[in-house]
Amino acid sequence: MENEPILTAAMIREAAERIRPLARRTPVMTSNSVDERAGVSLFLKCENFQRGGAFKIRGASNMILSLTPDEVRRGVVAFSSGNHAQGVAIAAKYVGAAATIVMPEDAPKSKMDPTRALGARIVTYDRLRDDREVIAARVMAETGGVLVPPYDHPLIMAGQGTAALELLEEVPDLDALIVCVGGGGMASGCSTIAKAMRPGIRVFGVEPELGNDVWLSFRKGERVSIPPPETIADGLRTLSPGKLTFPILKKNLESVLLVSENQIRAAVRFLMERVKIVAEPSGAVGVAAAMFGKLPTGIRRAGVIISGGNIDPDFLKTLYRETTLLN
Amino acid sequence: MENEPILTAAMIREAAERIRPLARRTPVMTSNSVDERAGVSLFLKCENFQRGGAFKIRGASNMILSLTPDEVRRGVVAFSSGNHAQGVAIAAKYVGAAATIVMPEDAPKSKMDPTRALGARIVTYDRLRDDREVIAARVMAETGGVLVPPYDHPLIMAGQGTAALELLEEVPDLDALIVCVGGGGMASGCSTIAKAMRPGIRVFGVEPELGNDVWLSFRKGERVSIPPPETIADGLRTLSPGKLTFPILKKNLESVLLVSENQIRAAVRFLMERVKIVAEPSGAVGVAAAMFGKLPTGIRRAGVIISGGNIDPDFLKTLYRETTLLN
Repeated sequence: MENEPILTAAMIREAAERIRPLARRTPVMTSNSVDERAGVSLFLKCENFQRGGAFKIRGASNMILSLTPDEVRRGVVAFSSGNHAQGVAIAAKYVGAAATIVMPEDAPKSKMDPTRALGARIVTYDRLRDDREVIAARVMAETGGVLVPPYDHPLIMAGQGTAALELLEEVPDLDALIVCVGGGGMASGCSTIAKAMRPGIRVFGVEPELGNDVWLSFRKGERVSIPPPETIADGLRTLSPGKLTFPILKKNLESVLLVSENQIRAAVRFLMERVKIVAEPSGAVGVAAAMFGKLPTGIRRAGVIISGGNIDPDFLKTLYRETTLLN
Repeated sequence: MENEPILTAAMIREAAERIRPLARRTPVMTSNSVDERAGVSLFLKCENFQRGGAFKIRGASNMILSLTPDEVRRGVVAFSSGNHAQGVAIAAKYVGAAATIVMPEDAPKSKMDPTRALGARIVTYDRLRDDREVIAARVMAETGGVLVPPYDHPLIMAGQGTAALELLEEVPDLDALIVCVGGGGMASGCSTIAKAMRPGIRVFGVEPELGNDVWLSFRKGERVSIPPPETIADGLRTLSPGKLTFPILKKNLESVLLVSENQIRAAVRFLMERVKIVAEPSGAVGVAAAMFGKLPTGIRRAGVIISGGNIDPDFLKTLYRETTLLN
């Protein structure tokens, strides 16, 4: 089994070809302001400009474009805090499959509305009380649909990895790659292709302190579950790393860096005010880690995946009411 | 005199070569959300990603890179509500010239701080009481410096025009070009090169209703002055079009479109929430015009110059407190 990895660089290259009709090749941005602040040259892979506002379309379309005609007829089911939902809805619409999305009832309106507008049916649940997997199973039994998991599937991981593939094609000489870690789908895919393209590259995961399941899992050497975290980084509120993603993360990630809620807010503001781009809190954790000295010394050129930009207007209100720090 | 226009396409092409070391080639962005909302395909030339956060570096560096060694030794003087100041400061630093900037004392901190950080000396004045040209003249007499005017100079207009040159090189088949009009430097340069590259293109200026000096001047057929306007679009608070720019605007612009303060706010929010980019109010007026049906019918593909992104944190606070409309 050690000889047949579930995720290979070849699968990620295939995904890049497959998803071309649906996923945008996003720009890589640089900014003197950020570099000065972070003390390292950062190359921001702007998945906030991705279709659907986040990297999630990459994995979702890789899986949905691989469905058989019979599976397409049955439709797809997904459970998602938001961005994955939009990715699934876009790809499902493209292939003509019905999509049912199971979503926490407190998911940001900025993520719920566009999903609904894409024609997906939304089933909501209580994030603190209900088990979304039980609900998803019930929906699947009802509809006969195919589950498109948010991260723990080789095709999903391979799709997400295409973000790093594009980044390293454009900027080959990176010392490090910084990726946020929710369930670990993007971190698995991106770290796998990065290590294949540039064996010496150092890869770091980033999590909010309040949602440190992967950090805890790294410390213990096995998957650890935490209670539902209350971080503003709503894309990183997973309770534990995936069964399939965790071994890949363990192999590829040098470490997991933690950032505070205030550091995340400051990074969102910095990106808005200096780089002129809108990143959602989950998308800004990598920049927060670099800005607040979480990277080990010796790194000069780091790629950072800005995972998404679907920011809630209500969050912006609080951001400008509550955040003062930028120094 | 009619036979020797003060601004030619060739001057703009020369400027593009000259300013290469200092000005970025900014990306052109598209967005399905914007197109659906506006009912026209928009191509956003993102000068908010420009060095210094606005297009102004183009004109300032075109003029400053043309100074004689003696003029460089004497230093430069500029009066500016903000973005021009940063452009002058960056270019002056690059050639080693001392820069003195005359700035209204209520200029946004987001524009004042970076100018100071670039080593420029700032002299402030009261926008409602003092005459900035008198103050600039005094500073010039004191320092012997060379004035770098914000818009009314052929080299400035030629530099600003390079934004449209790049846009049309990237997207040649535009029906229309939409530019904001303050003093008219960018509108002059951009309309001149656009008409040269694509004779049939329709060019529209956009102003805030509250700062409608160019609109009034068009109506009257001659330059009209207005009292200091209180628009949130601080880059468009000029009192009248320029002496040199006005004849060019009259020749090239089909009309001047007006947008309300609320429409500008809504456009800034739309760009943030849907396109994930930060535009300052002055930079969003073109999108506001397209979003709120100000364009004549029959236009299908329009280029819009997003002139800058230097938004004040205080403005964002009020934006999210006061703006509700997006429909």
